[in-house]
Amino acid sequence: MRTSQYLLSTLKETPATAEVISHQLMLRAGLVRNLASGLYTWLPTGLRVLKKVENIVREEMQRAGANEILMPMVQPADLWQESGRWDDYGPELLRLNDRHKRPFVLGPTHEEVVTKLVANELSSYKQLPLNVFQIQTKFRDEIRPRFGVMRGREFLMKDAYSFHLNHECLEKTYQIMFDAYCRIFERLELKFRPVIADTGSIGGEQSHEFHVLADSGEDDIAFSDSSDFAANIEKAEALAPTGERAEPTQALTKVATPNVKSIVEVATFLTVDIKQTVKTLLVVGANSEGEPDGIVALVLRGDHQLNEIKAEHLAQVASPLTFASDEQIQAAAHCNAGSIGPKGLTIDVIVDRSAAHLSDFVCGANEDDHHFTGVNWQRDCGEINVQDIRNVVAGDASPCGQGHIEIKRGIEVGHIFQLGQKYAAAMNCAVLNEAGKNQTLTMGCYGIGVSRIVAAAIEQNHDQYGIKWPKAIAPFQVAIVPMNMAKSARVKETAETLYESLKQAGIEVLLDDRKERPGVMFADHELIGTPLLLIVGERNLDAQQLELKNRITGEKSLIAIDDVMTLFK
Amino acid sequence: MRTSQYLLSTLKETPATAEVISHQLMLRAGLVRNLASGLYTWLPTGLRVLKKVENIVREEMQRAGANEILMPMVQPADLWQESGRWDDYGPELLRLNDRHKRPFVLGPTHEEVVTKLVANELSSYKQLPLNVFQIQTKFRDEIRPRFGVMRGREFLMKDAYSFHLNHECLEKTYQIMFDAYCRIFERLELKFRPVIADTGSIGGEQSHEFHVLADSGEDDIAFSDSSDFAANIEKAEALAPTGERAEPTQALTKVATPNVKSIVEVATFLTVDIKQTVKTLLVVGANSEGEPDGIVALVLRGDHQLNEIKAEHLAQVASPLTFASDEQIQAAAHCNAGSIGPKGLTIDVIVDRSAAHLSDFVCGANEDDHHFTGVNWQRDCGEINVQDIRNVVAGDASPCGQGHIEIKRGIEVGHIFQLGQKYAAAMNCAVLNEAGKNQTLTMGCYGIGVSRIVAAAIEQNHDQYGIKWPKAIAPFQVAIVPMNMAKSARVKETAETLYESLKQAGIEVLLDDRKERPGVMFADHELIGTPLLLIVGERNLDAQQLELKNRITGEKSLIAIDDVMTLFK
Repeated sequence: MRTSQYLLSTLKETPATAEVISHQLMLRAGLVRNLASGLYTWLPTGLRVLKKVENIVREEMQRAGANEILMPMVQPADLWQESGRWDDYGPELLRLNDRHKRPFVLGPTHEEVVTKLVANELSSYKQLPLNVFQIQTKFRDEIRPRFGVMRGREFLMKDAYSFHLNHECLEKTYQIMFDAYCRIFERLELKFRPVIADTGSIGGEQSHEFHVLADSGEDDIAFSDSSDFAANIEKAEALAPTGERAEPTQALTKVATPNVKSIVEVATFLTVDIKQTVKTLLVVGANSEGEPDGIVALVLRGDHQLNEIKAEHLAQVASPLTFASDEQIQAAAHCNAGSIGPKGLTIDVIVDRSAAHLSDFVCGANEDDHHFTGVNWQRDCGEINVQDIRNVVAGDASPCGQGHIEIKRGIEVGHIFQLGQKYAAAMNCAVLNEAGKNQTLTMGCYGIGVSRIVAAAIEQNHDQYGIKWPKAIAPFQVAIVPMNMAKSARVKETAETLYESLKQAGIEVLLDDRKERPGVMFADHELIGTPLLLIVGERNLDAQQLELKNRITGEKSLIAIDDVMTLFK
Repeated sequence: MRTSQYLLSTLKETPATAEVISHQLMLRAGLVRNLASGLYTWLPTGLRVLKKVENIVREEMQRAGANEILMPMVQPADLWQESGRWDDYGPELLRLNDRHKRPFVLGPTHEEVVTKLVANELSSYKQLPLNVFQIQTKFRDEIRPRFGVMRGREFLMKDAYSFHLNHECLEKTYQIMFDAYCRIFERLELKFRPVIADTGSIGGEQSHEFHVLADSGEDDIAFSDSSDFAANIEKAEALAPTGERAEPTQALTKVATPNVKSIVEVATFLTVDIKQTVKTLLVVGANSEGEPDGIVALVLRGDHQLNEIKAEHLAQVASPLTFASDEQIQAAAHCNAGSIGPKGLTIDVIVDRSAAHLSDFVCGANEDDHHFTGVNWQRDCGEINVQDIRNVVAGDASPCGQGHIEIKRGIEVGHIFQLGQKYAAAMNCAVLNEAGKNQTLTMGCYGIGVSRIVAAAIEQNHDQYGIKWPKAIAPFQVAIVPMNMAKSARVKETAETLYESLKQAGIEVLLDDRKERPGVMFADHELIGTPLLLIVGERNLDAQQLELKNRITGEKSLIAIDDVMTLFK
């Protein structure tokens, strides 16, 4: 490709609207342009990268034995009614009507369509297992699209779905896909980790996310410092402290804590370690049908944070998690939010494992501006319901049993689920088993955010000059930068000959034939992150040499023109 | 690929809903499945073909110097308001609102988005010409989707857009794209013709359609029997008859023609050649602003058909073409539709070239159940406005000046337009020219119906057993069909070894490892149209041979196992 015929579209200034570095660099390097909130056009350089990611994903899916298909983006609403997600999905699901006023959705994911397809096509257990995938444009109407293509509304996704007669068979395919995902991110040369994850609104049994590690990530990942264990903080278990709880030594005492609001202020005011305090949060409870009903107290050690996902999974707590209003707090605890405590509450109280291990602790007295000191669970509060409801923190014992927790930020680029029978049962997806009986299928589903990977790769690979692409996804392998081509026939001829040779050898080469100053050309190529630059200048041509610059290492060296082709062998 | 892990999904019966052979075969061969009206899932076999077509299109676009980009499918309505198509497009444009009630459309085509993009990215004439393309899912809300993917609502399209400083530069790129299109259809091994076309609602100056010739085509194509000339019948010029019009020889006579309605009945009743009659159609006229106003008469020779596109392009006629109601006919001609004639009408009369060449002809008398005979234009009707408003018919002189017209059916698979400044002017897409002045760009646009090509290829390449794919787009190059693999270890081993060797050599091979009868397997492979079958049977293995069957020629031969790999060299 010649820059003169190419839509390079680099920018000198960083657009003010871009918050994260990948978004800034994707705009500056001419990879994407914004069309409307969360909608991006991929320019030639960006699309080259996107296609490379797409191809690596496709190859590994095929290697894993998955069949590529392509389902419509526009899906009839009745399938979503059948699965139950028409009501469950919320406004991220874009609904629309066709010219005949029939309702449709823009597909955010394709469980319904693929389950219906397989229900129609398969009749016998002999056709199982079946694994199908597609690489397709998806639409999710995010309430606040941001970070460029990292959280856009229209995006490219690989979604795969596997179908099995039983859970054992699903486990096998799940492992094959887990391994395929690892190969994909290894081939993309990204620092990544598979982490244990919550199954969220997709539902199902077991689940792993694949995260690219980057400080700008939206997720906290908990790692063991001594094993392979990694889990999304949403899902990482906080173990109970070891050893017996200490016996009470202090008497229960009510103390005035005027105008003391937060738990940090309480600890400071009473000059106790915050780890000797508990905080009590009131949330909406749930009845035996799972419907919102009443108020429930959640008690955590003062320095710990509530894990909303864990709380939401408790049978006594309404989902989605809803904090009690001031009125509900007054009615349940007869005080304001800063003075609630577990002692004397007549509602259900759920105590985190770490809080439950405390003795002689401080808590609110359910009376405005008052706290108790010297509180002890059994003596002062009777029997308690102990659960894991907090986020792990750095230094916690790892739930795998080895080492301690470290926390890093990650960008979720893949997610695999053991779905079980959720969709197959709702949509009557069954085959005849060996005994000739109808048997509902068991499913897995496996997603990769193809366009998000491009942004994640940049978050992990850049410097102050621009992008440093991993080789496997660089838009071009090499750029030829001739110095003053307009003035030197020898430079022009060498550059053109080299360009044609590289092109004919199948090398992805960009010839910078613009009439720009060398500084402008170098800045552009560093920005778009071409791994190798071949600089053709009068100075070195007498010795039949070129300057070779490596974008990743920054190294410069001289190379004989005749040796250039061997660089790519 | 092994059939045991593959979603083959062939059907024995022809689905009743499929009208054309390509739709029937695409369903039976397991290429696509219907999800909802005009919405299809591409199954693995179909997607393999679709991707091959897509790749050929992509390669030739790149060879033609076009830059691949990818624009969003969901487009903000304000761009369509800016171009004027928000009002012009009609209900095929699917409109929708996002969660914030902002209006969007599902892109049926991308002139607006690309023009706005280029308006933002380009600033100087030095960056021209620029040619960009995308291969992307489009949506058009067809009122009556039919013929499977031939006229679906969601479909895969290649759309390219070129930008130029002037018309001369556009002409050059237009020719480059014309040639690229020819190469694409040659590589696809399809019998095709580029034909002169009307520019339709896209607008612009010059235009060619590319048609795959097939009896099931929806378009009539007019060819010269002696030159390369071909035009869509919408656009094919009907030349004026040669020679002078004969002088009047008959007197004007009014004759009663009771209960004689159609022009065929008139000719029979009066025992005159239908070519000596004219028929008169009344349509809604247009004022100088192009708004509907009044009624206009269109006069054709009795055996000719009105060309609605030609009529619609006349300044005196309203667009879209609207026929006069019975009331409007009574008011304008004082008779019913069967008795209208040009003589004595007080409205504008437009006479087709062939009708205008008649002497002593028959026409309606503008009085119920009466016609005139012996009518002559100048003598009886005064000066007339002569235009080309009819469809050409077989045997007409070709407008290219060489030979005569033949008419064949075609399936439109590509369309290229010289758009001119329609969009660039409306959306302020301009750059600084050499003189430093702002200059509006001139555009071309170039579409290919990628998914429609798959159907068109089948219309042209099939027999009673199934599809006969052109080699370039066959889903597999070869299938291995082992006879009784379950019973013969030697057959199984040979088939497996062959499969692995072919796969490793990069050959697209399907191993039929189902436990099916040979007849079932053969029928499936003929149906899906695999070009070569390698049949592994005990009978031939003693001589280390296989049976080779060619799907296209039907030839069967024996081949030494050791020679198989050379088949693909």
